[in-house]
Amino acid sequence: MEAEIITIGDELLIGQTIDTNSAYFGQQLGAIGISISRKTAVSDKEAAILGALTEAFSRVELVIMTGGLGPTKDDITKKTLCQYYGCGYRRDEDVLNHLEGLFASRGRLMLETNRVQADVPALCETLHNAVGTAPGMWFDTNGKVLVSLPGVPGEVYHLTEERVVPRLKSKFPLPTVEHRTLVTLQKAESLLSRQLESFEASLPAHLSLAYLPSFNQVKLRLSQVSPSSASTKDIDTYFQQLQEVIQEDVFCLGDIDPALFLSNYLIKNNITFTTAESCTGGWVAHRLMQAPGISAVYPGSLVAYANEVKQTELGIDDRVLAEFGAVSEPCALAMAEGALKKFQVDLAIATTGIAGPGGGTKEKPVGLVYIAVATKHEQFCKPFRLFGHREQIIQRSSNAALWMVKQVLKMPPDSVV
Amino acid sequence: MEAEIITIGDELLIGQTIDTNSAYFGQQLGAIGISISRKTAVSDKEAAILGALTEAFSRVELVIMTGGLGPTKDDITKKTLCQYYGCGYRRDEDVLNHLEGLFASRGRLMLETNRVQADVPALCETLHNAVGTAPGMWFDTNGKVLVSLPGVPGEVYHLTEERVVPRLKSKFPLPTVEHRTLVTLQKAESLLSRQLESFEASLPAHLSLAYLPSFNQVKLRLSQVSPSSASTKDIDTYFQQLQEVIQEDVFCLGDIDPALFLSNYLIKNNITFTTAESCTGGWVAHRLMQAPGISAVYPGSLVAYANEVKQTELGIDDRVLAEFGAVSEPCALAMAEGALKKFQVDLAIATTGIAGPGGGTKEKPVGLVYIAVATKHEQFCKPFRLFGHREQIIQRSSNAALWMVKQVLKMPPDSVV
Repeated sequence: MEAEIITIGDELLIGQTIDTNSAYFGQQLGAIGISISRKTAVSDKEAAILGALTEAFSRVELVIMTGGLGPTKDDITKKTLCQYYGCGYRRDEDVLNHLEGLFASRGRLMLETNRVQADVPALCETLHNAVGTAPGMWFDTNGKVLVSLPGVPGEVYHLTEERVVPRLKSKFPLPTVEHRTLVTLQKAESLLSRQLESFEASLPAHLSLAYLPSFNQVKLRLSQVSPSSASTKDIDTYFQQLQEVIQEDVFCLGDIDPALFLSNYLIKNNITFTTAESCTGGWVAHRLMQAPGISAVYPGSLVAYANEVKQTELGIDDRVLAEFGAVSEPCALAMAEGALKKFQVDLAIATTGIAGPGGGTKEKPVGLVYIAVATKHEQFCKPFRLFGHREQIIQRSSNAALWMVKQVLKMPPDSVV
Repeated sequence: MEAEIITIGDELLIGQTIDTNSAYFGQQLGAIGISISRKTAVSDKEAAILGALTEAFSRVELVIMTGGLGPTKDDITKKTLCQYYGCGYRRDEDVLNHLEGLFASRGRLMLETNRVQADVPALCETLHNAVGTAPGMWFDTNGKVLVSLPGVPGEVYHLTEERVVPRLKSKFPLPTVEHRTLVTLQKAESLLSRQLESFEASLPAHLSLAYLPSFNQVKLRLSQVSPSSASTKDIDTYFQQLQEVIQEDVFCLGDIDPALFLSNYLIKNNITFTTAESCTGGWVAHRLMQAPGISAVYPGSLVAYANEVKQTELGIDDRVLAEFGAVSEPCALAMAEGALKKFQVDLAIATTGIAGPGGGTKEKPVGLVYIAVATKHEQFCKPFRLFGHREQIIQRSSNAALWMVKQVLKMPPDSVV
């Protein structure tokens, strides 16, 4: 089954807002066997919305629409849908009650522009939006379903998971889709694809492999589509083969952020950690502290940008800085050891390097980064020659740090699934 | 003049990649008077690409296409474009030379899948991609221009700014577009829109106001479209009026991230700063340290998650923690003062609160956050009652911290333009 997405809003077209909702829908609908065949973004104009909607319904029977439901006057989705369906408005009492409660609880004044959010096209059912002001709307006419949602991501997640997905499952007969995903870091898509050539050729028709690259990271997703609730034996067998082919490149299994995977591993194994960061400026710590419950293993950490902070806070010897400089293996190792002692943890990660754009020399060019990992028993340090802009070098450094921690801890890729 | 964007890639539809390129094109083309009227994302299938391209050229004369130019076999844009234009391939020697140099410099083995990137549809001109492997392609037939670019964001930025924008400017007669943008934080779009109702009604036809909301922030963009290089007097007059209407809500002028604006102000005024963060876990520091040159005013900072770290690193008195707890005004103030002394800076920001999802009590619910700002002469602290998920509370806290610093420093909104 296929569906299309229509996103509405000049802010998407003039480029002030990045559309993250569409990717979310791809994931959520994909998981229940509905594939998105097209996404269209149009402006807040009646003709544009009507055109896109008519075209989409000429191709598919399900359209998900977001945006244009706010209280400001450029938001015209509801008016346009009244026109499309040839109906008027009705005031939805449930929505109105919800709005009144919401404004009262936040101590905010309710304006007429807010009250108008309870007026919906007469032909739709409203989908209760517990986390926002604009309700979702469900239209089901002539076998074609339109779901219209507000554009605010948090509201989209809530409405999709609580209201839309259950309804879609009971409305349409859907196939069973299974995915198995693994994450690789730091290896180019082209190299992976060459390694996996014969594996891909060996896949039966109901299995497919997708390369899902993002910056300095490729997720590999194996998918199996079956007409009913079929066995998952095939996909698991092939997923095992996939791991065997690219063994050493697998950071972790699952469709998960690798930093979150590592954080969960640290929590589960009660390994306390900290970071002492120079060039990455707190980015490694920030990536590792997103997991709920991280406070059990993470007392805090230090950004040591200036040499004086490296000296006074981490006890880096003057002679290390004088002889080798801050961007050096001895300094990285001393930073990790200093942080280990300071925060009294099991593991410390240190970064020191030149993220650019300025500060590079012939001996120590932009992109040279030393990463050290210290435990109570061992210390490791590796130099990296990374390329790209400032933010890219910072991101590559953080990925290199994740790999080093994985290796030091001998973390298996399926440790926390 | 209008253009459409077509993005190609199953990864966009299944939702593993968030499309940031489209927003970028909206900004870049908008700035030279080309507005994006529609964006369409389609899968890596010939029929889908051909369909979207044919439809787009039935509406506009300029189409920008991204993606599907990688070396893996699901990337079929070039093949499809050969079919659309009825031409074969040619091997581009400049591209081949560039590829050989690039692989040699990175010490990577060049594969035949990489060499194939020098084969392009015979009808196109290639656009030299100095930062990647796949060249851009420019097709100009029957007055209709198609620009095909790789999907990697860094390559898109390079090719657009260095190759595409200059060519578009010389190819098409474009109007002059001027924008003036300001940033507000923490105020709802509906409240702003109500305040600005009569201002909006007073705008002449060639001026327009756009609300560009993102999480906990609204940018207001005033735009003026003129047929030739007209005076900017009108837009400046109205922009001044706009600021007068919502005076106290203006964080800064310019289309700029407010944290970057503040960082630049600190650098320019040589105000050294640090942070001591509990519930925001380094997010405030990370937002403030993105500016190149920040090392001049930023020695480093501390994440003090655990109470012991607050005590040993920031000198928080046991009695403060025992009597008031870590989430309290006395603790936030002591954290800021402790960080000020520790890092010997002019200004310190401290955060302590309950980001959730766990840890809330009746007296101290999830979302209660104390933010303190200390200078050598003064200390300020304010409690905030923030709502939303963990990440939302962290982001709202960081915005609240930016506001507090702005007020303490009496930073004018136009200080670094």
